[in-house]
Amino acid sequence: MAKPVPVSPLAPTSVPDMPVIAGVKLATAAAGIKYRNRTDVLLAVLDKGTVAAGVFTKSKCPSAPVEWCRDKLSGAKPRALVVNSGNANAFTGKTGRAACKFTAEIAARAIGCKPGDVFLASTGVIGEPLNAKVFDGVMEGMVVAAKPDMWLDAAKAIMTTDTFPKVATARTTIGKATVTINGFSKGAGMIAPDMATMLAYVFTDAPVSARVLQRLLSDGVEDSFNAVTIDGDTSTSDTLMAFATGAAAAHGAPRISKPNDPRLRGFRNALQMVLCDLAEQVARDGEGARKLVEIEVEGAVSKKSARRIAMSIANSPLVKTAIAGEDANWGRVVMAVGKAGEQADRDKLSIWFNGIRVAHKGARDPGYDERQVSDAMKQPKISLKVALGLGRGKDRVLTCDLTKEYVAINGDYRS
Amino acid sequence: MAKPVPVSPLAPTSVPDMPVIAGVKLATAAAGIKYRNRTDVLLAVLDKGTVAAGVFTKSKCPSAPVEWCRDKLSGAKPRALVVNSGNANAFTGKTGRAACKFTAEIAARAIGCKPGDVFLASTGVIGEPLNAKVFDGVMEGMVVAAKPDMWLDAAKAIMTTDTFPKVATARTTIGKATVTINGFSKGAGMIAPDMATMLAYVFTDAPVSARVLQRLLSDGVEDSFNAVTIDGDTSTSDTLMAFATGAAAAHGAPRISKPNDPRLRGFRNALQMVLCDLAEQVARDGEGARKLVEIEVEGAVSKKSARRIAMSIANSPLVKTAIAGEDANWGRVVMAVGKAGEQADRDKLSIWFNGIRVAHKGARDPGYDERQVSDAMKQPKISLKVALGLGRGKDRVLTCDLTKEYVAINGDYRS
Repeated sequence: MAKPVPVSPLAPTSVPDMPVIAGVKLATAAAGIKYRNRTDVLLAVLDKGTVAAGVFTKSKCPSAPVEWCRDKLSGAKPRALVVNSGNANAFTGKTGRAACKFTAEIAARAIGCKPGDVFLASTGVIGEPLNAKVFDGVMEGMVVAAKPDMWLDAAKAIMTTDTFPKVATARTTIGKATVTINGFSKGAGMIAPDMATMLAYVFTDAPVSARVLQRLLSDGVEDSFNAVTIDGDTSTSDTLMAFATGAAAAHGAPRISKPNDPRLRGFRNALQMVLCDLAEQVARDGEGARKLVEIEVEGAVSKKSARRIAMSIANSPLVKTAIAGEDANWGRVVMAVGKAGEQADRDKLSIWFNGIRVAHKGARDPGYDERQVSDAMKQPKISLKVALGLGRGKDRVLTCDLTKEYVAINGDYRS
Repeated sequence: MAKPVPVSPLAPTSVPDMPVIAGVKLATAAAGIKYRNRTDVLLAVLDKGTVAAGVFTKSKCPSAPVEWCRDKLSGAKPRALVVNSGNANAFTGKTGRAACKFTAEIAARAIGCKPGDVFLASTGVIGEPLNAKVFDGVMEGMVVAAKPDMWLDAAKAIMTTDTFPKVATARTTIGKATVTINGFSKGAGMIAPDMATMLAYVFTDAPVSARVLQRLLSDGVEDSFNAVTIDGDTSTSDTLMAFATGAAAAHGAPRISKPNDPRLRGFRNALQMVLCDLAEQVARDGEGARKLVEIEVEGAVSKKSARRIAMSIANSPLVKTAIAGEDANWGRVVMAVGKAGEQADRDKLSIWFNGIRVAHKGARDPGYDERQVSDAMKQPKISLKVALGLGRGKDRVLTCDLTKEYVAINGDYRS
């Protein structure tokens, strides 16, 4: 890393050993797009027979690679993924579309597939033209160098303002065969639903169809990446993709082609674990973050209403700065509940910080001890619970505090 | 002011001479609610015959005084306004409602009117019980001391994190008679539609009916207070009220009882000027603000769509921190346009900073000179214009940058 930004204090204390996924090889390179002395290109080479699924930003101004992936997803026989950091290739007009085509052609030539079988992503500065020619010099070498055990390197190559690489893994069974899921993600700012990440990739050897993979991914994103917000800003590049090589069929895993197949239960859970793990790591690496903040809303009229209220709290600068200041300022939580536009009754509202009830039924909790709560606020993780007392809708989202460092990081990111 | 926070560099360079408004007398006092060595209570005494209008927060958790005012507005014969700073009397349950009643009773007794003819507001910390007994000691003295030339003192008494008092005045004619409008406001954080202020009051001697006053106020708020955002957080206490004493009838102003009366034209414009002036002062006093930011959106499919896009830009932490860093990071503007959820076509989008076009039809402007724009970004006012190229809808909102000082101010506001 060229940047002298210290690693987030909320980073996981250990990095999991990442197993290989049969059918996936990875390589990274330093193409010099923006950064010096670090890798900035990732290539994943996928065996024939791989299927893909994807969920993309809802931005009305998506990046060129997002449009490329959306366009190719249904017809492709996925053979490669190319991701670069340092430049988002977003809002780059025709040049951007040409850069996508050129990059895919280089990768396709090196691998021996069609350009439409190559998936792309770019992350970094918006609006600067991406000089795709830099890939021309490195791609062939990357195909040769690609190895199955480069997961942490892959996660590092796609970092931008991230302070640590984000990887997760899980193992489960389909039928009697073991299947593996690996994933990595990047994202630290411009993080909000939908999607709540910039880039995340999941790979598995499970022999599931593209339709199954898409359903599981679309379902899984709701309570993982879509339940994380750093700053309420939605990226133009947000991409979550999953690739299933099907290689586990060779050691007996049954091929699954229906999303409601009961044999998927373990796989669905394992995938959800990986998605949630990666999403939480994004929150833990929120730009300038010193506190991981979990917001639980219960007693809402519906889950959707609970989500909106939770997001209103999670995106409130006043709530986030109070938490940065270790101040259990529940009045601001009331404010954020009130502004969500969802059903809420002040006189039924209760609020907890790290398990301590500070407000109850529309007023300060009689047993509220400021000092006890102050101590709780010193923890690196803050659980903020709101009970609305109206119905059975509940939800949970993750965010982080808003510190001076966030302002510093984003006040001179481009320079 | 007890706080050592310096006055906003965006404060107006001069304060207007505030004329008297026949029928309005003002007094301030130091009741010691929270602050030391400053006034924290305002009393406005209104002559008989005064009519009132109000626009209040849309928060689902409004403060007790907001509920009080809403409840009294239609039936009251307004005789007094009592505003305190230091405590918002919000989320205070039954105690809060009792505090309102008690305050109104004290004022009513001192003035000789009904409690229901007294309007109230409180601003400051949310969730702390307001000890209304403190008003008992000061109210009678305030009624005696009330004078017609206390406008700046009134504006000072209701300040919380404001760094300067906000007053505005305008004069116009109805028929051949001169009428005067005075206003003051407070607000620096927790400022977003609807309403984009915490408290603002306007007084006039114009003989307009309550219905006329309400219509003009409701119409006027849309492009003034509702077009300002500091941090996207909506207060539980937002209140804009207008009082018309009708005293100008004594020197010939005609009584106006229909909102569409053509004789109202000048008055409507003058009122709008006062509202816009007060609203802009709120943006200029945004917590920690160093830049006033005007966002103009044109070419949208409707005014409503333009407003939403403008607000998406105005509330984006990434846009606001970039402006704090004097970085013309138009890529983040693209992001904010994209996330607004409104119709936008990347390939038709153009963006200007202080009149310099930096992006044109979906890509970087060919003539874009980074250094020229960098110089423009050093100005204290930044005009950010976005042209969508889709239709004729346009709108304008005001905001400010997001600085480390905002985080500092809000990280220890309560302590």
